[in-house]
Amino acid sequence: MSEQLTFATPGKDAIEPYLPSTTGGPTPADQKPFVTLTFATSLDSSLSLAPGVRTRLSGPESKAMTHYLRSRHDAILVGVSTLLADDPGLNCRIEGATSQPRPIVVDPHLRWTPSDSDKVLQLSRAAQGLAPFVLTGVAPADVPRESAAVLEAHGGRFIHVDPVPSVSSDGRMRFSWPSILEVLRANGLTSVMVEGGGRIINTLLHPDAQDLIDSVIVTIAPTWLGQGGVVVSPERVQDEEGIPVPAGRLSRVKWHSFGEDVVLCGTFNR
Amino acid sequence: MSEQLTFATPGKDAIEPYLPSTTGGPTPADQKPFVTLTFATSLDSSLSLAPGVRTRLSGPESKAMTHYLRSRHDAILVGVSTLLADDPGLNCRIEGATSQPRPIVVDPHLRWTPSDSDKVLQLSRAAQGLAPFVLTGVAPADVPRESAAVLEAHGGRFIHVDPVPSVSSDGRMRFSWPSILEVLRANGLTSVMVEGGGRIINTLLHPDAQDLIDSVIVTIAPTWLGQGGVVVSPERVQDEEGIPVPAGRLSRVKWHSFGEDVVLCGTFNR
Ligand SMILES: NC(=O)c1ccc[n+]([C@@H]2O[C@H](COP(=O)([O-])OP(=O)(O)OC[C@H]3O[C@@H](n4cnc5c(N)ncnc54)[C@H](OP(=O)(O)O)[C@@H]3O)[C@@H](O)[C@H]2O)c1
Ligand SMILES: NC(=O)c1ccc[n+]([C@@H]2O[C@H](COP(=O)([O-])OP(=O)(O)OC[C@H]3O[C@@H](n4cnc5c(N)ncnc54)[C@H](OP(=O)(O)O)[C@@H]3O)[C@@H](O)[C@H]2O)c1
Repeated sequence: MSEQLTFATPGKDAIEPYLPSTTGGPTPADQKPFVTLTFATSLDSSLSLAPGVRTRLSGPESKAMTHYLRSRHDAILVGVSTLLADDPGLNCRIEGATSQPRPIVVDPHLRWTPSDSDKVLQLSRAAQGLAPFVLTGVAPADVPRESAAVLEAHGGRFIHVDPVPSVSSDGRMRFSWPSILEVLRANGLTSVMVEGGGRIINTLLHPDAQDLIDSVIVTIAPTWLGQGGVVVSPERVQDEEGIPVPAGRLSRVKWHSFGEDVVLCGTFNR
Repeated sequence: MSEQLTFATPGKDAIEPYLPSTTGGPTPADQKPFVTLTFATSLDSSLSLAPGVRTRLSGPESKAMTHYLRSRHDAILVGVSTLLADDPGLNCRIEGATSQPRPIVVDPHLRWTPSDSDKVLQLSRAAQGLAPFVLTGVAPADVPRESAAVLEAHGGRFIHVDPVPSVSSDGRMRFSWPSILEVLRANGLTSVMVEGGGRIINTLLHPDAQDLIDSVIVTIAPTWLGQGGVVVSPERVQDEEGIPVPAGRLSRVKWHSFGEDVVLCGTFNR
């Protein structure tokens, strides 16, 4: 569990312009956190073969990069389905890391029941990571006491977020991205790396939200996973006449090959 | 229509190792044609926003590359839906090209009715391109006389291909890729560039066919088109236990950035 990773130049230099600054004064309390969207896909834009099927996409360089990126953010955010499917560690194992990022789990309906055997909690007990902040739409009084006790014993907590009032047709609670970021900022987190999975990424890439993204760092592996995977592709966007238009285009684009993979850096934030 | 394109080094040098050789002796008649698969997609692996919606994906460098690639192949192949949706020219406009590639249209049910106003036939009349060979499952006696007359007047023709005997559940005729390539070779074509669209590409990327591919050259633009586009993603593949496995992985991989786009070169043919 304590294998250490190293991430060296030139990779480091290549992504530096896309990272939150390490210097500079304190971030004003009313400013949104710096948002980096990062994930790895196949050529057919799949994150995994199916939810819960662990899929090795990218090579070792890319793994080291992910951990380096984690060392440069206050928080790392995933959707609850990723937590349930993968039991991820959500810590930083880069050589020389001096602090750990805070895992943020978006879990509107409390589908996760924290338990001592969850990897993310094991790592926090071993002082190799932090326990998550869980963003939920469930009212504080309705959060199961035992869940709260387990999470708090590890240094994590449940944080209530007001869902978007107009509930979707499936009756499920949704958070707006501005409200998610506001809650992070209110909890002292000035930068967040959004890691997945598919639904989290696709809502953040929607034109309503994409301007909140400061940096995009995507790794693409030279493989086709095939139909039926967990796909990154935002909702379709149409113009006034109902003609489909591209959902989003990056600017300040740079591509870097990294072993067999390519890393794409860009931004929506012109 | 006669705008000339130029494609210079370093782009030329980058793709050279992935192209059919220009030197060497005559290709034996029983050898399959050299197959290059090439297309442009968005980050979410879409070829276009919807069938028939012209979608500008890649930049001018990439357009010049496509025309240079065409100058290096005997034939360029598209599915009938691409012909019907886009009315493409299917010629080569690279500066200094000494010959034109033969357009091949895969049209099992003769959905295309050739007409003097089709761009590909206009260009052949202007001696700026060749008229297509149309691969069809329709018996020679059943090909409409007028269609044959129009096509032949331009130097093209209909060529019968035996469909795969086990007809798919939708009752439509399908050609196997070995039979398509055999017909090309029998007609003197020693190299083919497969350009699209989605269905053509997805059947060629299927594990049953992918070993026939000598080179893959894919341009990726830093844009997400959104759900509902014409997607490149081969059929799902599963192992004996029904667990999904990756449909295909490239080897001899190189990535080159080209303006804002990236070009991926690789092969299945180890
Ligand atoms: N390759 C990579 O880089 C990478 C990275 C991460 C994950 N993954 C893969 O991705 C897969 C999981 O992806 P997924 O799409 O199934 O799930 P996901 O995005 O991890 O989680 C989806 C769930 O999170 C909640 N959620 C998402 N957006 C929300 C919003 N705006 N407001 C409120 N709740 C929101 C919803 O919970 P409710 O259902 O309760 O409403 C939703 O069902 C796994 O297979 C994992 O391995 C891959
Ligand atoms: N971005 C790019 O590089 C690029 C390149 C080319 C095309 N495109 C886009 O792709 C879209 C069209 O794609 P598409 O998937 O709709 O159509 P397509 O692949 O061009 O054509 C599909 C049709 O071709 C026939 N076909 C395909 N594979 C066959 C096989 N193995 N055996 C027999 N027949 C076969 C079938 O005809 P039947 O229906 O008669 O059975 C099938 O319906 C257009 O929007 C076009 O603009 C983009």
